[in-house]
Amino acid sequence: MCPIIMRSEGCRWDSLSLGEVMLRIDPGESRIHTARHFNVWEGGGEYNVARGLRRCFGLRTGIVTAFADNPVGRLAEDLILQGGVDTSLIRWVPYDGVGRTVRNGLNFTERGFGVRAAAGCSDRGHTAISQAQQGDFNWEEIFGPQNGARWFHTGGIFAALSESTVLVAADAMDAARKHGTPVSYDLNYRDSLWKSIGGKVRAQEVNRELVRKVDLLLGNEEDFSAMLGITLEGVSEDFADLPVESYERMLREVAAAYPNLKVIATTLRTAHTASRNAWGSLRTRLCTSPNARLIFWIALEAAIPLHPV
Amino acid sequence: MCPIIMRSEGCRWDSLSLGEVMLRIDPGESRIHTARHFNVWEGGGEYNVARGLRRCFGLRTGIVTAFADNPVGRLAEDLILQGGVDTSLIRWVPYDGVGRTVRNGLNFTERGFGVRAAAGCSDRGHTAISQAQQGDFNWEEIFGPQNGARWFHTGGIFAALSESTVLVAADAMDAARKHGTPVSYDLNYRDSLWKSIGGKVRAQEVNRELVRKVDLLLGNEEDFSAMLGITLEGVSEDFADLPVESYERMLREVAAAYPNLKVIATTLRTAHTASRNAWGSLRTRLCTSPNARLIFWIALEAAIPLHPV
Amino acid sequence: MCPIIMRSEGCRWDSLSLGEVMLRIDPGESRIHTARHFNVWEGGGEYNVARGLRRCFGLRTGIVTAFADNPVGRLAEDLILQGGVDTSLIRWVPYDGVGRTVRNGLNFTERGFGVRAAAGCSDRGHTAISQAQQGDFNWEEIFGPQNGARWFHTGGIFAALSESTVLVAADAMDAARKHGTPVSYDLNYRDSLWKSIGGKVRAQEVNRELVRKVDLLLGNEEDFSAMLGITLEGVSEDFADLPVESYERMLREVAAAYPNLKVIATTLRTAHTASRNAWGSLRTRLCTSPNARLIFWIALEAAIPLHPV
Amino acid sequence: MCPIIMRSEGCRWDSLSLGEVMLRIDPGESRIHTARHFNVWEGGGEYNVARGLRRCFGLRTGIVTAFADNPVGRLAEDLILQGGVDTSLIRWVPYDGVGRTVRNGLNFTERGFGVRAAAGCSDRGHTAISQAQQGDFNWEEIFGPQNGARWFHTGGIFAALSESTVLVAADAMDAARKHGTPVSYDLNYRDSLWKSIGGKVRAQEVNRELVRKVDLLLGNEEDFSAMLGITLEGVSEDFADLPVESYERMLREVAAAYPNLKVIATTLRTAHTASRNAWGSLRTRLCTSPNARLIFWIALEAAIPLHPV
Amino acid sequence: MCPIIMRSEGCRWDSLSLGEVMLRIDPGESRIHTARHFNVWEGGGEYNVARGLRRCFGLRTGIVTAFADNPVGRLAEDLILQGGVDTSLIRWVPYDGVGRTVRNGLNFTERGFGVRAAAGCSDRGHTAISQAQQGDFNWEEIFGPQNGARWFHTGGIFAALSESTVLVAADAMDAARKHGTPVSYDLNYRDSLWKSIGGKVRAQEVNRELVRKVDLLLGNEEDFSAMLGITLEGVSEDFADLPVESYERMLREVAAAYPNLKVIATTLRTAHTASRNAWGSLRTRLCTSPNARLIFWIALEAAIPLHPV
Amino acid sequence: MCPIIMRSEGCRWDSLSLGEVMLRIDPGESRIHTARHFNVWEGGGEYNVARGLRRCFGLRTGIVTAFADNPVGRLAEDLILQGGVDTSLIRWVPYDGVGRTVRNGLNFTERGFGVRAAAGCSDRGHTAISQAQQGDFNWEEIFGPQNGARWFHTGGIFAALSESTVLVAADAMDAARKHGTPVSYDLNYRDSLWKSIGGKVRAQEVNRELVRKVDLLLGNEEDFSAMLGITLEGVSEDFADLPVESYERMLREVAAAYPNLKVIATTLRTAHTASRNAWGSLRTRLCTSPNARLIFWIALEAAIPLHPV
Repeated sequence: MCPIIMRSEGCRWDSLSLGEVMLRIDPGESRIHTARHFNVWEGGGEYNVARGLRRCFGLRTGIVTAFADNPVGRLAEDLILQGGVDTSLIRWVPYDGVGRTVRNGLNFTERGFGVRAAAGCSDRGHTAISQAQQGDFNWEEIFGPQNGARWFHTGGIFAALSESTVLVAADAMDAARKHGTPVSYDLNYRDSLWKSIGGKVRAQEVNRELVRKVDLLLGNEEDFSAMLGITLEGVSEDFADLPVESYERMLREVAAAYPNLKVIATTLRTAHTASRNAWGSLRTRLCTSPNARLIFWIALEAAIPLHPV
Repeated sequence: MCPIIMRSEGCRWDSLSLGEVMLRIDPGESRIHTARHFNVWEGGGEYNVARGLRRCFGLRTGIVTAFADNPVGRLAEDLILQGGVDTSLIRWVPYDGVGRTVRNGLNFTERGFGVRAAAGCSDRGHTAISQAQQGDFNWEEIFGPQNGARWFHTGGIFAALSESTVLVAADAMDAARKHGTPVSYDLNYRDSLWKSIGGKVRAQEVNRELVRKVDLLLGNEEDFSAMLGITLEGVSEDFADLPVESYERMLREVAAAYPNLKVIATTLRTAHTASRNAWGSLRTRLCTSPNARLIFWIALEAAIPLHPV
Repeated sequence: MCPIIMRSEGCRWDSLSLGEVMLRIDPGESRIHTARHFNVWEGGGEYNVARGLRRCFGLRTGIVTAFADNPVGRLAEDLILQGGVDTSLIRWVPYDGVGRTVRNGLNFTERGFGVRAAAGCSDRGHTAISQAQQGDFNWEEIFGPQNGARWFHTGGIFAALSESTVLVAADAMDAARKHGTPVSYDLNYRDSLWKSIGGKVRAQEVNRELVRKVDLLLGNEEDFSAMLGITLEGVSEDFADLPVESYERMLREVAAAYPNLKVIATTLRTAHTASRNAWGSLRTRLCTSPNARLIFWIALEAAIPLHPV
Repeated sequence: MCPIIMRSEGCRWDSLSLGEVMLRIDPGESRIHTARHFNVWEGGGEYNVARGLRRCFGLRTGIVTAFADNPVGRLAEDLILQGGVDTSLIRWVPYDGVGRTVRNGLNFTERGFGVRAAAGCSDRGHTAISQAQQGDFNWEEIFGPQNGARWFHTGGIFAALSESTVLVAADAMDAARKHGTPVSYDLNYRDSLWKSIGGKVRAQEVNRELVRKVDLLLGNEEDFSAMLGITLEGVSEDFADLPVESYERMLREVAAAYPNLKVIATTLRTAHTASRNAWGSLRTRLCTSPNARLIFWIALEAAIPLHPV
Repeated sequence: MCPIIMRSEGCRWDSLSLGEVMLRIDPGESRIHTARHFNVWEGGGEYNVARGLRRCFGLRTGIVTAFADNPVGRLAEDLILQGGVDTSLIRWVPYDGVGRTVRNGLNFTERGFGVRAAAGCSDRGHTAISQAQQGDFNWEEIFGPQNGARWFHTGGIFAALSESTVLVAADAMDAARKHGTPVSYDLNYRDSLWKSIGGKVRAQEVNRELVRKVDLLLGNEEDFSAMLGITLEGVSEDFADLPVESYERMLREVAAAYPNLKVIATTLRTAHTASRNAWGSLRTRLCTSPNARLIFWIALEAAIPLHPV
Repeated sequence: MCPIIMRSEGCRWDSLSLGEVMLRIDPGESRIHTARHFNVWEGGGEYNVARGLRRCFGLRTGIVTAFADNPVGRLAEDLILQGGVDTSLIRWVPYDGVGRTVRNGLNFTERGFGVRAAAGCSDRGHTAISQAQQGDFNWEEIFGPQNGARWFHTGGIFAALSESTVLVAADAMDAARKHGTPVSYDLNYRDSLWKSIGGKVRAQEVNRELVRKVDLLLGNEEDFSAMLGITLEGVSEDFADLPVESYERMLREVAAAYPNLKVIATTLRTAHTASRNAWGSLRTRLCTSPNARLIFWIALEAAIPLHPV
């Protein structure tokens, strides 16, 4: 395999993410169903990469997404601005005053306590970005010489939003590759998103196509199994015991199936308690990346911090 | 016209309301689009009557509504419990984990300041109660001898939620009347709700039917005009100047058109500033109600208090 | 011993508790004596069982208690309503405007930190419920055929409030048993409550009588010793080391002394730090209960959660 | 009448107050009975004079009071320390762990809103200071040459706490006068405090004696009527219309009845709305005080500020 | 006079501001000296123009300033990012860990209440931007063809920070004019800033030079008097009574003295109470601006909103 | 060595501290650079001893320091008052309205989380106390017969503020010793304070003089090395492994070099995580102190509590 080559000429963005940004509505020390006060943050699997690269490493990043144009969407924009991520590629969709035609995504999340696991309630149906259509974003202008991005990131959550977001993701990845922008993709399997639109069968159909357009793939054993159908031998039902050799074999199998991949990154998280995690990492270095800093972050991004960095 | 006669025998509820209950998400002194913290309350035009009757007058009231069964719905239930309103008639609809099929209603509201008006953003598409179908509630059991209610209240917001809620409201009113339960109906015209489902034409089609099943009708000049097509002569565009004689003439016209009505109540609110209102009231006493306390509250309910009573 | 038989016919309540409900006034992360802000919750040993059964298992529960009728009492009612527990059996006592004749109970509690133990200050003298007299509650109406309860719970905290609450508890238990309602009793020895009204001598005099009316008894080694005079051999002064065999012997001794008991439940809590506890449980199954869910909760209730469930 | 002469030699305190200090528990923008969060302040009619003199004018003041020695009392001490008022004369009474024998006073207060008046709930029965006995404070040591105070202030709220606080106040006033310390007394009639201990008959019996020991008397028309039995002619029931000439005649009647008085100060407050008051003042200058600054404050103190100065 | 001509070609910024940005530390409803909690905002006379143009009108604005590179400076950056104002021209100065050599500006501000005026305490000595030197910013690059700004705004607060900021302002204005960028300047006289560096004498010396480089001048009667020495006849000491004809005469005198000025804008604020202001405006239209929206904002900016727009 | 003899006659203070008091500005659970809300506390190495002795042990303590006389300084005073520490020796320096000449010290501090260490940003340049000069405090009056203190405490942070604070500390220590008041000194080496005023060379020059005036010296291995040049053999670079025998040898070396020392106290803190520390202690008892309680506290004071005691 050849290494990942990044464009060094004057691009407008160091990295662009494509995905949904939701308001994270957080009851602090309380539980959602008995709270009277909430804090709000913004978040989203693909967006978190852009925010982290901006605030930890000072890179110029942007988010490609869509919002219904109402005060809730403008609050999301306000939080993204605070995150330092470029908002100029956000598509604003007129609001109907009710939320029948289009909405913004909300994600109520609560911390675990002792034996009680962290829990949440995502309210992301009918969102503006889930209704994005091919042609909504001008990828040629975005990745072409007038603007340009040194990296492009999207993932399996975005692809699971609707039939049309799969096509949007594919178009974006094609345009990026055409202009020499490396593409990273985080599999990020979410059962709730896929179950009503075809389940794992559809997930694999979609992702086996998209992964062929990827340079750097992120995922763990559950992702590879659910999204690509490549399983880990000898793993227990709850992934409690992960044999490292099997793990490496699985990764090599992924690499063989998708020769376009240049790096596969995976994280091994073991949740000790609701607020303490152990982190391991297993990287199959297929080649050496010339931009270690950026890749390093992408490997970290699965660890959504309690408070924004 | 004959007076409103209330059932005096042992009913389970003094009053039942049928309508949507939304979480009111309130940024306090901030604006929605720059806030980082929100308080939550519950609210809804029809529900507020039940809550007020319970907390101000100690009556036993209940709410007929539906929620998606997730932590957001359970938070609404927690707030209704705090309000002292019976939750046993709430219909719980399974949640899909995403909000594609069913959701709970949210209402972001901010206070005005100086010349800036109060504003809001209701996010109530695809809610459980807007999808309520005929047969979802067993009205015979609710109003019949095993349970029974001394009063029933619903209104034009509920009827505007969808095609099916009109039918649900009609069934409920019919059952109430069959069992001798007086019915009140608050016209409460909301342009945003009607505009995408047929506008004022459809609003009038629907409400002219429903109002025939009503004993006590609530509304102001805008409501009578938009929902029933009965207009006030000599009123200025912005309703700033309301001639009392024309007002009375309009009310008598309503009374003539709907001989089933026993009381028509209307409120005259003039907003001086964002936080100070002047209240007037004009009641066309068509007959004397034997239960002044309950009717008094219904006339007050349009004044949603800043903080729950 | 015969098993606990629960009434299955249409009772109004699944479970009733008799006891004091206090406002829990909580400085959050601060200490009481330097705080400037407090959160309020409601709580009480006997009440917590009713709340838990309602919010965790959805059972219809009620609380029998009394409050001085002032805004503090009404706040307690508001919190109990939120808890979903029926408030219709609360006795409201007129307030004198000062608190000389009757008050409501307050419980200031602070969390521990590191080596500093959690601490509190209960301010519960002269409360309405501590002044409850025989005849204040119509037990015949409560447990009789017009209403009825499937379970009744009270405990040693209530019995320690005053001379008269012992009599109220005894009357309630007698009425419950008369109508076939099983009775649970949580010994819950509190040194501060007993010391000024006769100490352990009086505690044992009172409880030895009350426990004869009980079906399910809850307690730990300190409770059995202080309240019944039945001690555990080989236990160290601070109960740090609890030999399981001695424990079982002690429970069998209790069972022998009170042949009316059908289940004895006990919890073994070891506080590791101020915020982490280890929980064990030792249940001497004297017979199998037909209602495991309810009993399960009662065994859990000693674990007052940081935030309400 | 002769002028008020203040001791100029090296006294330990510029002014001492004798009275109860309560925790003021304040729900902010909410109402008490639906709040979940409270702020705490300290307050008390007599104490407020000491705090204001300390924080507005920098005088060295102290408070003579008593607390039950528990975290609630220590919180009151913490707030008094913040107020800069000397705490060395506070008497600490052992707490029984329950509040049966002795407590600390609490005062729940909420703001009015619109037509709704401000309201409160004082919970001050059985407090440590209400149980103060003659001999609890060593007045000879306090006012004598080893310490000394340039002014002494107490009032009718303290005298209304119990039978014994009347005697404590009388002893303190006698000792102050013996050592040349002028005495001020704020009548401050509170119906709730007097009604269960003899009403206005007892209030007048007590105050007619105490006012004979006073140099500067504070009060309004309701105070003079209820506490001294000297009434204002031509005043309407609700004191809405106060004829100034009658007012002056009443004050001269008070001055004639109590020739020991050197200054009588009275405030005329008209509450426009819940948060806006109009202030007038009417001072019958019987003689000129050599310490205008201190007297000025005492006249102001009835205006308890929303937030501490 | 000729009209203000704005560059229409592709500039990077619609407007740039040069000035200090301070953290505004706000005790909410409390007073600074007794608060325990503070909110933080960002603010600064010149910066507020950039923020308002960005958030109210969606223009692309930037701020030229400097911060000490520590967490306080990074918090200011975080707030500016939230404001949507470009942070790429901020100069970051290394911090010494103590604040001896360089700091960031803080501005403690409290609201008035009733008769008490709003008050504040600015702590802005030794800040990074007050130490800015000629050459610290590359004005040629900023205003030249590679970047470019359609408008440039600075003012008399920036010029009052130090000897060197006067020179920095002059250089920036010269470069702007050279590249055809119109310049606005808000006189904004602050007595506290000028008094220790030469008072009004020095203020006039400095501003008479700077105003010669300005297209649009903002100020009120106090500003024209203190900063330019041009006074208003017939004005009372406290500016309570402002005769409009004198006002216009004064403005025409300013226009005559500085023929380079194309627009002079002035605001007439009358503070009714601490939280209510009346606003008037008097604009001497010397010519018609082609960009009314931008100028409109600058005229508004003196009205710092309670909460950010 | 002879024991520490404390004055037993009637001193005004049990202990006095000389040092800076800063506002501690605390973002709670957030990070400084993304927070919107802060809590404030007061703190300072030397002051903490006075506060702890007052609030934990009830001793009468005072603080000798200086503040700029503005609302920030008055907030610090308000917090010190709450701490119960005598404020009568605070020197108030006129404020210039800007902070160019004199300021008050601020200390922004944030908690660590997981692998992230706690961090802070002290903003203490140009403070009033750092500019204290010889003669600013009347030590003769403070320690002499009219007032007097039973103990005096200062430390190496105060001595590091400026050239002049070294002289102020020396004068204070000389006066204390002259009047028989024992002196404690906490070395407390802070690299950031020393680095721009001469580094460790200057630190040792200064401290070798000051320590000759000390009775009780506090420090750890880093302090002894940086401030006195006495090093610990066999210690690893990061002080991770501290051999106890070497530690004792080092302490004996200190004792030999400064024969005036009567007690040397040192604390061994090992930070396990950001919020859990292990504490050890090693006291070289050179003689027995007659006032164990006071010395005990000084040994504890390095452990700044999360929340004030």
